[in-house]
Amino acid sequence: MILLTRRATFSASHYYWNPSWSEQQNEAVFGRCANRNGHGHNYTLEVTVTGTVDPVTGFVVDLKWLKDVIEEQVISVYDHRHLNLEVPEFADSIPTTENIAIAVWNRLEVPVAEAGGAMLSRVRVYETNDIFAEYRGEKGETRI
Amino acid sequence: MILLTRRATFSASHYYWNPSWSEQQNEAVFGRCANRNGHGHNYTLEVTVTGTVDPVTGFVVDLKWLKDVIEEQVISVYDHRHLNLEVPEFADSIPTTENIAIAVWNRLEVPVAEAGGAMLSRVRVYETNDIFAEYRGEKGETRI
Amino acid sequence: MILLTRRATFSASHYYWNPSWSEQQNEAVFGRCANRNGHGHNYTLEVTVTGTVDPVTGFVVDLKWLKDVIEEQVISVYDHRHLNLEVPEFADSIPTTENIAIAVWNRLEVPVAEAGGAMLSRVRVYETNDIFAEYRGEKGETRI
Amino acid sequence: MILLTRRATFSASHYYWNPSWSEQQNEAVFGRCANRNGHGHNYTLEVTVTGTVDPVTGFVVDLKWLKDVIEEQVISVYDHRHLNLEVPEFADSIPTTENIAIAVWNRLEVPVAEAGGAMLSRVRVYETNDIFAEYRGEKGETRI
Amino acid sequence: MILLTRRATFSASHYYWNPSWSEQQNEAVFGRCANRNGHGHNYTLEVTVTGTVDPVTGFVVDLKWLKDVIEEQVISVYDHRHLNLEVPEFADSIPTTENIAIAVWNRLEVPVAEAGGAMLSRVRVYETNDIFAEYRGEKGETRI
Amino acid sequence: MILLTRRATFSASHYYWNPSWSEQQNEAVFGRCANRNGHGHNYTLEVTVTGTVDPVTGFVVDLKWLKDVIEEQVISVYDHRHLNLEVPEFADSIPTTENIAIAVWNRLEVPVAEAGGAMLSRVRVYETNDIFAEYRGEKGETRI
Repeated sequence: MILLTRRATFSASHYYWNPSWSEQQNEAVFGRCANRNGHGHNYTLEVTVTGTVDPVTGFVVDLKWLKDVIEEQVISVYDHRHLNLEVPEFADSIPTTENIAIAVWNRLEVPVAEAGGAMLSRVRVYETNDIFAEYRGEKGETRI
Repeated sequence: MILLTRRATFSASHYYWNPSWSEQQNEAVFGRCANRNGHGHNYTLEVTVTGTVDPVTGFVVDLKWLKDVIEEQVISVYDHRHLNLEVPEFADSIPTTENIAIAVWNRLEVPVAEAGGAMLSRVRVYETNDIFAEYRGEKGETRI
Repeated sequence: MILLTRRATFSASHYYWNPSWSEQQNEAVFGRCANRNGHGHNYTLEVTVTGTVDPVTGFVVDLKWLKDVIEEQVISVYDHRHLNLEVPEFADSIPTTENIAIAVWNRLEVPVAEAGGAMLSRVRVYETNDIFAEYRGEKGETRI
Repeated sequence: MILLTRRATFSASHYYWNPSWSEQQNEAVFGRCANRNGHGHNYTLEVTVTGTVDPVTGFVVDLKWLKDVIEEQVISVYDHRHLNLEVPEFADSIPTTENIAIAVWNRLEVPVAEAGGAMLSRVRVYETNDIFAEYRGEKGETRI
Repeated sequence: MILLTRRATFSASHYYWNPSWSEQQNEAVFGRCANRNGHGHNYTLEVTVTGTVDPVTGFVVDLKWLKDVIEEQVISVYDHRHLNLEVPEFADSIPTTENIAIAVWNRLEVPVAEAGGAMLSRVRVYETNDIFAEYRGEKGETRI
Repeated sequence: MILLTRRATFSASHYYWNPSWSEQQNEAVFGRCANRNGHGHNYTLEVTVTGTVDPVTGFVVDLKWLKDVIEEQVISVYDHRHLNLEVPEFADSIPTTENIAIAVWNRLEVPVAEAGGAMLSRVRVYETNDIFAEYRGEKGETRI
């Protein structure tokens, strides 16, 4: 068993806002992120799959295929979009780095598993160079 | 004479839109950047000043002072903002990387000159790792 | 459960010296690092916490709070300091990358746990781009 | 127990080719990587060992020693070489990122173990900034 | 006038060999780079153009167009290729970083000029993180 | 004419202190950098030479030779040293980033010129990722 990772990037807008709170409460908790005009980031995504190496190809999975799956399931939906306004899973969930990592996992887990030969193992999302979140699924080890 | 550079970062939203054009024309020229919900980036700014080294301090300028000027003149205005909607110079100018570089120059040229001892020499703005613009003022050499 | 990481940096001096050894022995084992005038590094710290995402905020922890805890417990004590001469835990422990990782863990474990909602999961310390150490506490998995 | 990592780099050529397949089949599966003239990469290697910190030195292992082992066992064999044509383990195994990670593990596991005090824990190989593979040995956890 | 830069990458093989020299002489001058099996790199290219900002678009040039020109003129010819064996300009010129920078300039100067609105100003080629060459054309300033 | 750059790194300690000032005055101007125990950085050096490409080798200069000159003239003197206490040029000059850039220029200008074929064109010194100084000699263009 080996782990194989592919990075991808997308640029998107978001804001942090809990609609059940007052404006004052949102600003107290979320600070500048509560600005409803939105602000944005260049997000970097690391998608890791695990499986055995196919002795015929030397591949866990075909990285071109993995790139296309990430493009189709995530980048084409998130890139150059306003996450709160245009991406369905953030209609009622705040697009924090943590929630983006979970959402990307949810978009990729089944397509990776269905392709056979490998399973999704980890999704890491960088909001900036200094902040990142990782999700490994409901059964994943959370102790790094 | 020596050149001294300080980097700073800000996260902001923007879109590309020429109000004198139809929606169709905007989309034809600006593609996904014409999305009026906005998208965003982590911008990196490199501000370069030039001057002589003060033999008493070893400084061209005090980098703490330079950091504060950049913070006050640029970061506090641009960071966590929607550039088109909240930053005055982009009310009637499209916030492309080129125009952001010129706008940052215009915000910093006088404060740096007034402090004495150094002049603004170059502003470089990275929109992503792969795209950046540089401006050196109206009298600046444009041949790198 | 999800993992959330925040980076921070500090610049410090150190040297490697075992006071129970002769100068010769110290130089034989530690080479140039035994220079008692000290040398220094820009250290990069990655602090990872684990917990569940609060559905109200979308946060595992408030990253602003985590930044402040790291600043207060570590950066304000280590940055622009000589680790051997000015940081208590290195009075009788050599400030190698390994020992810095353990010391940072020891400084952060209780404050993170006391805040509720998350636990410290990993501390990674980069001495240079090419050298880093990770500590996950006494109960942590050491198999990556 | 703590984890200590050292990076190293090498520049090498390779191609992907399964000799039991036709040229057409190789090109269908491997695309541009099937070009028999070869192409190349700057590979980055991260070698992680685990052990306890020696209280006398503050070291898990001497990083100078670890650098020398990586140099002797891997870099001197792989750097400025054509992996398919000049490195024995790739005579009958395709030098994909996955297989390189396993090969590096196989070259380092015994020398690290024999030195005493630490065990090889993880080998990560970056082919580009966007693609990397990790191997943790046959007994290693593959869930990150 | 402003400068606008776009990065691109390609992975290629090469070797250093002067056919008018003996093998011994080639190895004396070029060392490991004289290995005729070839070795390779992930090259990073920075292409800089200069011009005035079009007030209607905020562009010096359309970065999508610039990306396509670089792709068509350079990346499609160099990527996943053996530079000595497959790229015409290196049939009788050694593909050093310096010569690659000049060759890229020669491939891009006319297409950029013909598009109108901007001129090629600088080509920078990174062979590794630690080595890069810049060319600014025959009339370019060589004093940075 | 073309420009060729080689990077190198060194780790060193320093402090900022003007001996003709009181302790109070030093702390007022230099802040935490006035700490006499010293603090340190991983410095990155970019040394750029300019010349014509030798058609026989494809080189402006041999990069192995350039690496050795930088090692001999700079790295062997600065690395793992306390700049104020152990490097002669900083006995009576404060080792700011600006002064280090000038000092490196002064150490390299003659050896590069004497080797023939190229001249030193630029020295850039990064103290951190966010701060760097450039020097181009007394006759150098200071307008970037």
